[in-house]
Amino acid sequence: MASKQLVSGLKPGEKVDSYFSVNYKKPVTDYKYGAMFEFRVADRSGQITVKYWGGSDKAAVERLHDSFNREEVVRVKGEVAEYRGLLEVSINDKNGGSVARLDEGSYDIRELIKTYENIGEMRSRLADIIGTVKDADMKRLLEAFFKDKGFMEAFATSPASIQLHSAAVGGLIHHTLNVAAMCERIAELHAELDRDLLMTGALLHDIGKVTSFKVTSNINQTKEGNLLGHIILGDQELMRRIATIQGFPDLLTSKIRHILLSHHGKKEWGSPVEPMFPEALAVHEADDIDAKLDNMITKREEAVTEDDWIWDARHSRLIYLK
Amino acid sequence: MASKQLVSGLKPGEKVDSYFSVNYKKPVTDYKYGAMFEFRVADRSGQITVKYWGGSDKAAVERLHDSFNREEVVRVKGEVAEYRGLLEVSINDKNGGSVARLDEGSYDIRELIKTYENIGEMRSRLADIIGTVKDADMKRLLEAFFKDKGFMEAFATSPASIQLHSAAVGGLIHHTLNVAAMCERIAELHAELDRDLLMTGALLHDIGKVTSFKVTSNINQTKEGNLLGHIILGDQELMRRIATIQGFPDLLTSKIRHILLSHHGKKEWGSPVEPMFPEALAVHEADDIDAKLDNMITKREEAVTEDDWIWDARHSRLIYLK
Amino acid sequence: MASKQLVSGLKPGEKVDSYFSVNYKKPVTDYKYGAMFEFRVADRSGQITVKYWGGSDKAAVERLHDSFNREEVVRVKGEVAEYRGLLEVSINDKNGGSVARLDEGSYDIRELIKTYENIGEMRSRLADIIGTVKDADMKRLLEAFFKDKGFMEAFATSPASIQLHSAAVGGLIHHTLNVAAMCERIAELHAELDRDLLMTGALLHDIGKVTSFKVTSNINQTKEGNLLGHIILGDQELMRRIATIQGFPDLLTSKIRHILLSHHGKKEWGSPVEPMFPEALAVHEADDIDAKLDNMITKREEAVTEDDWIWDARHSRLIYLK
Amino acid sequence: MASKQLVSGLKPGEKVDSYFSVNYKKPVTDYKYGAMFEFRVADRSGQITVKYWGGSDKAAVERLHDSFNREEVVRVKGEVAEYRGLLEVSINDKNGGSVARLDEGSYDIRELIKTYENIGEMRSRLADIIGTVKDADMKRLLEAFFKDKGFMEAFATSPASIQLHSAAVGGLIHHTLNVAAMCERIAELHAELDRDLLMTGALLHDIGKVTSFKVTSNINQTKEGNLLGHIILGDQELMRRIATIQGFPDLLTSKIRHILLSHHGKKEWGSPVEPMFPEALAVHEADDIDAKLDNMITKREEAVTEDDWIWDARHSRLIYLK
Amino acid sequence: MASKQLVSGLKPGEKVDSYFSVNYKKPVTDYKYGAMFEFRVADRSGQITVKYWGGSDKAAVERLHDSFNREEVVRVKGEVAEYRGLLEVSINDKNGGSVARLDEGSYDIRELIKTYENIGEMRSRLADIIGTVKDADMKRLLEAFFKDKGFMEAFATSPASIQLHSAAVGGLIHHTLNVAAMCERIAELHAELDRDLLMTGALLHDIGKVTSFKVTSNINQTKEGNLLGHIILGDQELMRRIATIQGFPDLLTSKIRHILLSHHGKKEWGSPVEPMFPEALAVHEADDIDAKLDNMITKREEAVTEDDWIWDARHSRLIYLK
Amino acid sequence: MASKQLVSGLKPGEKVDSYFSVNYKKPVTDYKYGAMFEFRVADRSGQITVKYWGGSDKAAVERLHDSFNREEVVRVKGEVAEYRGLLEVSINDKNGGSVARLDEGSYDIRELIKTYENIGEMRSRLADIIGTVKDADMKRLLEAFFKDKGFMEAFATSPASIQLHSAAVGGLIHHTLNVAAMCERIAELHAELDRDLLMTGALLHDIGKVTSFKVTSNINQTKEGNLLGHIILGDQELMRRIATIQGFPDLLTSKIRHILLSHHGKKEWGSPVEPMFPEALAVHEADDIDAKLDNMITKREEAVTEDDWIWDARHSRLIYLK
Repeated sequence: MASKQLVSGLKPGEKVDSYFSVNYKKPVTDYKYGAMFEFRVADRSGQITVKYWGGSDKAAVERLHDSFNREEVVRVKGEVAEYRGLLEVSINDKNGGSVARLDEGSYDIRELIKTYENIGEMRSRLADIIGTVKDADMKRLLEAFFKDKGFMEAFATSPASIQLHSAAVGGLIHHTLNVAAMCERIAELHAELDRDLLMTGALLHDIGKVTSFKVTSNINQTKEGNLLGHIILGDQELMRRIATIQGFPDLLTSKIRHILLSHHGKKEWGSPVEPMFPEALAVHEADDIDAKLDNMITKREEAVTEDDWIWDARHSRLIYLK
Repeated sequence: MASKQLVSGLKPGEKVDSYFSVNYKKPVTDYKYGAMFEFRVADRSGQITVKYWGGSDKAAVERLHDSFNREEVVRVKGEVAEYRGLLEVSINDKNGGSVARLDEGSYDIRELIKTYENIGEMRSRLADIIGTVKDADMKRLLEAFFKDKGFMEAFATSPASIQLHSAAVGGLIHHTLNVAAMCERIAELHAELDRDLLMTGALLHDIGKVTSFKVTSNINQTKEGNLLGHIILGDQELMRRIATIQGFPDLLTSKIRHILLSHHGKKEWGSPVEPMFPEALAVHEADDIDAKLDNMITKREEAVTEDDWIWDARHSRLIYLK
Repeated sequence: MASKQLVSGLKPGEKVDSYFSVNYKKPVTDYKYGAMFEFRVADRSGQITVKYWGGSDKAAVERLHDSFNREEVVRVKGEVAEYRGLLEVSINDKNGGSVARLDEGSYDIRELIKTYENIGEMRSRLADIIGTVKDADMKRLLEAFFKDKGFMEAFATSPASIQLHSAAVGGLIHHTLNVAAMCERIAELHAELDRDLLMTGALLHDIGKVTSFKVTSNINQTKEGNLLGHIILGDQELMRRIATIQGFPDLLTSKIRHILLSHHGKKEWGSPVEPMFPEALAVHEADDIDAKLDNMITKREEAVTEDDWIWDARHSRLIYLK
Repeated sequence: MASKQLVSGLKPGEKVDSYFSVNYKKPVTDYKYGAMFEFRVADRSGQITVKYWGGSDKAAVERLHDSFNREEVVRVKGEVAEYRGLLEVSINDKNGGSVARLDEGSYDIRELIKTYENIGEMRSRLADIIGTVKDADMKRLLEAFFKDKGFMEAFATSPASIQLHSAAVGGLIHHTLNVAAMCERIAELHAELDRDLLMTGALLHDIGKVTSFKVTSNINQTKEGNLLGHIILGDQELMRRIATIQGFPDLLTSKIRHILLSHHGKKEWGSPVEPMFPEALAVHEADDIDAKLDNMITKREEAVTEDDWIWDARHSRLIYLK
Repeated sequence: MASKQLVSGLKPGEKVDSYFSVNYKKPVTDYKYGAMFEFRVADRSGQITVKYWGGSDKAAVERLHDSFNREEVVRVKGEVAEYRGLLEVSINDKNGGSVARLDEGSYDIRELIKTYENIGEMRSRLADIIGTVKDADMKRLLEAFFKDKGFMEAFATSPASIQLHSAAVGGLIHHTLNVAAMCERIAELHAELDRDLLMTGALLHDIGKVTSFKVTSNINQTKEGNLLGHIILGDQELMRRIATIQGFPDLLTSKIRHILLSHHGKKEWGSPVEPMFPEALAVHEADDIDAKLDNMITKREEAVTEDDWIWDARHSRLIYLK
Repeated sequence: MASKQLVSGLKPGEKVDSYFSVNYKKPVTDYKYGAMFEFRVADRSGQITVKYWGGSDKAAVERLHDSFNREEVVRVKGEVAEYRGLLEVSINDKNGGSVARLDEGSYDIRELIKTYENIGEMRSRLADIIGTVKDADMKRLLEAFFKDKGFMEAFATSPASIQLHSAAVGGLIHHTLNVAAMCERIAELHAELDRDLLMTGALLHDIGKVTSFKVTSNINQTKEGNLLGHIILGDQELMRRIATIQGFPDLLTSKIRHILLSHHGKKEWGSPVEPMFPEALAVHEADDIDAKLDNMITKREEAVTEDDWIWDARHSRLIYLK
């Protein structure tokens, strides 16, 4: 197993011997010559189905099937086939194929999940922004998060979503800095706003994503992420950190919590309260604009068509590519 | 000042000498013979406007104006007048009127805010329901709330809303018991449900209202109630109590938090997450049905008309009264 | 043809010889070796496609094709095959397969449609509830329905929907009793309500389903069910029965009709009028809660996945399974 | 009491002595010099408030108050006054005023409610349209309605709404003929449609309005009109008439009922079923277009402003008047 | 290549040699014996997939692939096959198949796109309607469009949509005449309307479709059609023609533009302004009713099922076929 | 008439002698002592009602009433009175009052309409931004607008709305620069965007407001503004200017028109097309965020209450003021 073979580069007939993360696995089932099962693997370039065609020793196939799981990394040896217009990897005796679970450390995670390359640079830009906050309480709060090495490490390597651009290691800090940059401009244009409150809200609005996503060999929502949501997880973490700062003002606590809780802008978009003062509204708007633009730009970049248009089904709109 | 004169019983021309809570106060303004101001007072039976007509010593009127505030209780001496079809209380030199702030203790709060009479009985019914919970962890959690005397006292005297039936001392426990009674029936009909989880969710779903309402001389939303909402305040209190129980299971924590967070049923109704398992759905539905029925029954009871119908503007519907 | 082979138990390669109801039949078409057609069959456990591969005598294939229809029961002899990941039954000369229409009586309908086992018990519970109604007119009305043997038989064997739990013989009485049980609890909690009116409405709200569904070898909507809807069919039957009761009060007629007509709660959900008094609102709410809970519980029970979550596409929500 | 004085012509200071219908009456209340009550009267030109200022014999005022009711006709003698920018009629001893109930027959109803002048002409146009229906069953059905003298009289004098143009005696036949005229054009343009079914549906779609409105001295919704709605009342009447026609086809019954039931077009607009075949869709569309155009044309005609625009609050739109 | 073989008439196993328009073409890809590509062709009767199975000379396959494009017409020689239940045309060496681009003129466009047969008759009806317009300015405007031979030719051969009935050469004039016929009837029923303005609006409302659709070998939306929409293109053309008429009144310009701009009726349906006077409302309603009826009638006619019902997914409704 | 008396500074009993713009005028009506009329006036600080109480010579009052109109400026002499809690100006013989129309030039328009003070500075910032556009075509287009002195003057003095902050002379250039500033930041964050296209769109998006508003003595919507909307007026002006630039690329024309047409973001918000490429989306988002923030900040600044909260009825939300 030499250098990583990327899913996006596989061709029909090609031999495969590389590692991938497992996204999904179906139960063992019978076929003409024995037992088989299929699973779906991914790396940073895309996804592909793998079919293991075993022999008549069904118990052996079951054992193999149970030897690895979703969210683990496997080494797959097989051959690329085409089936109903789609590529798949076929493993069987004849092609000497195999599949085996790999331990952490025996593969390069950056081949499996997209990673922002300038994380170091982004961390230092984040520190610069914190440096511009003048209010002592808010500065202490920001430092309680971002000078905590454990938190900072988790924050800097967290994705910001499960799909698209920000679905990458570093996606959360990338998105947070974009929101902060928009808010800096808003503060320049609207002198009436409390710049410190605005920047503090911008930097903390998505901290709940650190715990609502789990990055193993791919990106998943945690059980708490589903049952409670990243807004509630963020509020919980915010309260926990504030409790460690002596004399943190009550009203300021409520305001920062409000910004975090209301940053989806509308109840129907998942915020239990809606923005009630301009700094909260600004953080919501900056968050929204970054997500929407990122979404459309990514769709345009990833479009694979000779046509001038693609249909963006999720938003029910045509996107023009030229 | 003998027995309480209720707002609902005042007649044009009648002398007034009684105490009321102050809901709203306007600034001092000039009139033909000097300075005046108006304010709005209430008791458990209704609201009425009071006008203080002072003389030419504007500073004296300002001092009187500043001597009491919203949410305090005042003794009002004056005379009932009719102005543009509505009753109001008029205070002036000629009728020997006056207005003065009262200290707590010098009035009977039960004359100012509606109060459920059977609170004692409701407390014991609540205890009975807790007794039916079999799971040790959930029982410990319920006791952490309802065997804490301070919490229980606050819970038993909290209202459940600012308007209608449940806008009364005891409204919260009354509503909570109704929801629990509906959930008991649901548990009987659907044996698949986890009855303990269902009852725990029913009893705790609205605990955030204890801190989101402030009952002084009337019922108001607190600043935190507005900025954070009773759902978030409830979740905060739930986490705080769970933290005191050693070994409380993580999954159970998430489930109970989920019931509380999702009990409004839809994001657009203020829940950051929507019910994801049947016990959460059942608590939401029971909460919803109690509120809707209470609302329509109250409208029907309070209707003052000889007609067979009233128009319920808030829900855009006719209600039939016969 | 010994005991019934259930669809859910069929395995690839297995021989089939059993009876099924026909849900859908496609026209005859050509293939390499002659003419073929496919149809879809079902029993209480699920559905499966059947393909009949005939020879070059197309007229013979057409005759076989025309010898049975949708909503009839057929005996199928063939072999289970797998085609593109799905099982199907293949009938051809080589496997000695055949298909033939069965007359009523030569199969057990309970193998084709799910059936509640405790219908007798439910009928007696229904009689008990009628016994608690005190108003003479309403009691006479309820008896005009439920003491009419023909109606009672039809009511007790009617399904309450085409899908899910209540899509079973006995589903309507099961659902009606659940609604009545919720309304009994509501009557206990709200003494202001007219209990007799509430229970009468609860028991009669869905009587239109008796004629809007047709149970032959499966459950279908009748032509009238589609063109008029079960609410209108129910109202029609209600008027018909009331007309047989001498001196039935006009106002009571209008109120019971209103409960039936408004029980979907909102115009957009198919009620031509919306609940205008609390008893109508209560019947709607009880109906709604039973349907929603039944729906989620059934989804959770029928989920076939090793995952902790399933996606409920119809309601756009995740359901948690643990 | 000579010729009718119309509300729209009353001027401040003018003496009034004429008859009006009573729309609304408030309870007796006290004022400085005794007891008074107010009520609201109307005629075909508009509405005005009347205030009766009695003396200190409150029992006498109560007796007068109770001597007439809503929906009756009274003779009012008094004087027009202006109060807060609006005209009102004042009755008191000084101006020799009085109010007294009139018996039916002692006033001209056409002065109280707007009436279409060409009802005779419209009746003969309706007969012409029936003459174009060729299907024997549908012709019999139409004649069962429109050759029944009692029904025809009620139909020809019924209003079609409580407000605007069609809120007039003859409004229903006027609207029905407009819908039929649109449907005739649709039948010309779309030869695929069943013209007889279309015209039958057009003529019968609003028959429920005959019983859902009550025309006494003004136009009101009946109790059944509110609780059941004119669609259900129409369906009930349709079934009743069809039952009298021997051998009326079942499928045709369902189709005509479907047209009537679905003529509001959407469930949220009050139809329990939505149009499922083109004739039903056409009747709905023709009904809708007549109502919308009538509404905007009436708003434009009744606008009293020197401005080029009025704001139509109900539809949230500007209407251009030039 | 004799007479046209229509897609709808192709049978499995049949030889194909006919011309079709190309709707879609996929890139060249590898298969077991060489390189292949597929494309999709259409004629007035339907669509079918074509697969070209080339040999091992991939460059030759690429050259063939690049020799024709979307929206061109090709001659296809091959054989009809069935693949996964659908028919397709297979081209390969063994069946002597080929594909080649045809020049304009070497095929009959009327075989590729549906065409109304009575276009001549429709043109003369259009002229008749213009003859009924009395206002000199509006008549000049209509003639500026419809007496311009180039415009009239384009208008008379334009489709009115990409799908359904009006997706045909002549669809635009057909639809325009239907809208005008409805407006004539509206003018008869509502004498208050300005008939000339109404008819002018009816005839011009959809002129933007002349440039927003492109008819080559099939019907497509142009780039401007997508980016600007047919309403804006119509407004642009209207302004351009009005600019050529000396002394055309400003207010009339604004009114006709308003009718055109508002003819979708609601902002959410794409009109930047909503109808503000009755003539604009009438044109919108007539447009809407023609589209909706045409849609349902077409669905009913094109339904291929033995069932009594089809499901119209786009409008989420059942359509009854009997 | 010395220095301007501002509406916001008027006190009960004060004499008034100053000029105001007329917003609204009611017809002459009778009162006890003769004829009167009322009108509503405004200046940059607010609005107030004026009542003219004339004598018995009604013709004279009518002449005075007809001597001035809406949107003109009048000199008002009278006295401030209080009526039902609101201030008004009373003009009558006793207080020597009068009202007379003023000619343009005899008053200072800046006292009547709010005016941004830094318009000169904003013009030079606009020029700077144009200087950063590199594409020659787009630069020529921008100069065709902003180097046209007539247009530039109109643009720089146009308001951006009828209410709130931007309802001021200079409001349009102020808003345009804010949108441009947000777009500059977006271009920095997203290098994939065409910065020139983005800035051109930002600067031109609202040019239709120059003709859709009319600033006389106050701000009104023009007839074209209502009937066509500022988006269509902007598109018309854009096409007109582009037509003067030789060789302006077609595709670029469509793209810039698309940005302008789609800048409201959604059809339901008045854009006939929705953003189809990222630059269009960015202009919409920047426009939206500036409007929303400006709105909330203005509401907060203008709130006149001692309370911590105000209710923003238009957006159905509480705004927190502390």
